[in-house]
Amino acid sequence: MKNVINVGLIGCGVVGSGTARVLLENKADIAKRVGVPINIKRIAVRDVMRKRPIVLPDGMLIGDPYVITDDPEIDIVCELIGGVEPARSYVQRAIEHGKAIVTANKEMMAKVGHDLLKQAENASLDFLFEGSVGGGIPIIQPLKQALAGNRVREIFGIVNGTTNYILTKMARENASFEDVLREAQAKGYAEADPASDVEGYDAQYKIAILASIAFNTRIDVSQISVEGITKIAQEDMEMADKLGYVIKILGIGEMKDEGLRVRVHPALLPKDHPLAGVHDVYNGIFVRADPVGDVMFYGRGAGSGPTGSAVVGDIIEISRNIMSGGTGRLGCTCFDTKPILPMSSLIAKYYIRLTASDKPKVLASVAGVFGDFDVSLESVEQKPVENGDAEIVILTHQTIEQNLLSALDVLRRLSVVTTVDNWIRVED
Amino acid sequence: MKNVINVGLIGCGVVGSGTARVLLENKADIAKRVGVPINIKRIAVRDVMRKRPIVLPDGMLIGDPYVITDDPEIDIVCELIGGVEPARSYVQRAIEHGKAIVTANKEMMAKVGHDLLKQAENASLDFLFEGSVGGGIPIIQPLKQALAGNRVREIFGIVNGTTNYILTKMARENASFEDVLREAQAKGYAEADPASDVEGYDAQYKIAILASIAFNTRIDVSQISVEGITKIAQEDMEMADKLGYVIKILGIGEMKDEGLRVRVHPALLPKDHPLAGVHDVYNGIFVRADPVGDVMFYGRGAGSGPTGSAVVGDIIEISRNIMSGGTGRLGCTCFDTKPILPMSSLIAKYYIRLTASDKPKVLASVAGVFGDFDVSLESVEQKPVENGDAEIVILTHQTIEQNLLSALDVLRRLSVVTTVDNWIRVED
Repeated sequence: MKNVINVGLIGCGVVGSGTARVLLENKADIAKRVGVPINIKRIAVRDVMRKRPIVLPDGMLIGDPYVITDDPEIDIVCELIGGVEPARSYVQRAIEHGKAIVTANKEMMAKVGHDLLKQAENASLDFLFEGSVGGGIPIIQPLKQALAGNRVREIFGIVNGTTNYILTKMARENASFEDVLREAQAKGYAEADPASDVEGYDAQYKIAILASIAFNTRIDVSQISVEGITKIAQEDMEMADKLGYVIKILGIGEMKDEGLRVRVHPALLPKDHPLAGVHDVYNGIFVRADPVGDVMFYGRGAGSGPTGSAVVGDIIEISRNIMSGGTGRLGCTCFDTKPILPMSSLIAKYYIRLTASDKPKVLASVAGVFGDFDVSLESVEQKPVENGDAEIVILTHQTIEQNLLSALDVLRRLSVVTTVDNWIRVED
Repeated sequence: MKNVINVGLIGCGVVGSGTARVLLENKADIAKRVGVPINIKRIAVRDVMRKRPIVLPDGMLIGDPYVITDDPEIDIVCELIGGVEPARSYVQRAIEHGKAIVTANKEMMAKVGHDLLKQAENASLDFLFEGSVGGGIPIIQPLKQALAGNRVREIFGIVNGTTNYILTKMARENASFEDVLREAQAKGYAEADPASDVEGYDAQYKIAILASIAFNTRIDVSQISVEGITKIAQEDMEMADKLGYVIKILGIGEMKDEGLRVRVHPALLPKDHPLAGVHDVYNGIFVRADPVGDVMFYGRGAGSGPTGSAVVGDIIEISRNIMSGGTGRLGCTCFDTKPILPMSSLIAKYYIRLTASDKPKVLASVAGVFGDFDVSLESVEQKPVENGDAEIVILTHQTIEQNLLSALDVLRRLSVVTTVDNWIRVED
């Protein structure tokens, strides 16, 4: 029987220092919960001389990650540097040396997680990655375990804190995307290069991971349609509010009879939807499944403490497996290969905002174009703007996306239409 | 290596039939997730001739639960009848015969769960009870596992669907408690004898279970202060709304420097609190912990499908433990004995509604009494009602509950005060 679990951390940035802090500060309680103490043996960092936000025992920091992956005394290796390489190489080497793995690396898991999980599974080693989605929110473990009796029909949510912060601010303060982004960058909530967040790539990795687990099918990142929030204007925020909606960027995975559809895009959500109340940097993930019905998970989606909580939860889980002799109990769950459906066959409601000449019969001809493509309209609002133009805001009934896009194509070429300013899907 | 996991169910009512349905309908997927099929071998019921809401194979129903507890082929016994006895006896016998246990029995777990968990732990057997709180919402497993690195400061939530349905209806339709209760009974949402729900006993069991896990300390049901919703009037609903609050009945466990306080009572919650949006029969459980911050879990808190989902999740979890050879990995987590604090030392804000003579200086003398007991007031609203009386609604600042109660005692004896109609704690 082991009397200590030794852990090695690779990386001591935001997540690594958060993980180390929890393991050190809650050491006594964690030891009681596991049955033996969990000891950080080594932390590998690029620069051992750099000042860290926590005080670590002398000699704990080292420069070479392979000292950790190859150390026979280390039971669990935590990869906390992010990105695919060199993270993947460290993880592969650690598995080769019989280590269980914990990671919070969404990009690695979304892109090459399947192979890594298989490698660990073949070696009967545990491999957990709760921190890769939703920060400290327990979501991967509930999907794989507590909800494992269910058939998931939909999983969708707010999985990127930066864009949720921006959209929340835009809605509350009637501010433009550019202004709020600049402020978020100043506060450190958004990166200097904000593309990963505002273009939706971060959310794409996360919904790839969630949908793969929920539908037991490996979702390739390239199969996920992605739109960011850069096109959301103040006018859209105002109109959505007036129509009884909020605008959120969602990661969505859904199972239809014909296959799966996985997507990231801004959407109008009814104000009384539980996700509509998820503000600022918080994340919320909604699961619709049989027989559980609707369940939602909510919390801080990023940061040192929350993600550290998830990583330590995984370390504790693996430690218990090691202590009970039951390692490798939960491998890759992608045992299915359901087909992936294109966006063009999506059936949804749509919000459209366009500018047209403020003249008689213009509305009729705009409505006529939608009718030509079988797009039926739920509501139309028109108001005069400058230059003799009118702003027309339309909500459609359920329609096939391809039909909507064809109608918009024709509208853009219509002489009375100045611009098709925006169109956004509505999730009811 | 086993090639099947055999399960025996005791009880085939709402939860039992929900459990059987999931195991039968999702059998193929569950087999893939576990690695071997999960087979229902027997279901014990009081009346084998009674018609059941699901079609079961011939001979599956039997009358004697001890045939299940004693069957050497059965791996997991699911106790789904509720109440302490005879459920406890069946569970004890099953553990004696080496069976892992799954139960959704909140009363048994709150009252005698500690001893049963110890008995199972000593035999290295798994004992899971996710369905005992929050229906299908994963909350016990996340608390014991994904959040295990945290120090929980507070756990509180809406844990009883019936009372949440009643309060939601009262707020939406400006209806009285009695009218809504009658309607809920007609619809089958409330029992003919509604005491267990409306007096808060059901919530008391659930918060006993949650707080015991969250604080690693066994909370005895008798240590929990309980108030139900029968005293909530339409006037309170209206005033709460006007003041920016909703009224919900909450189960609350909190850790203070001096110890734990666990309680069930109606409370005013700010409208922008995530739990304020939990309506109808839904439950929501909020956890505030270091370092994860605030996390919330939301879903249907009862019913055949949701609770069946939780029971099957537990069955799958145990089956994986059996298959990996790691049973008994998670026993009773009550390794601490933190002191329990009385309600009188609670520090909170309070809402008070009283009726007094509509005469000059009355408000001053009412306010004076609060001042005498160091209760400072945040807001006071007064409006004339019938018989020359005025209704006075007060929100206090943070104060010690004992001081508030003393002030109310004096107010009740004040000649100008007709009645102290209600007082409700405010949770900010």
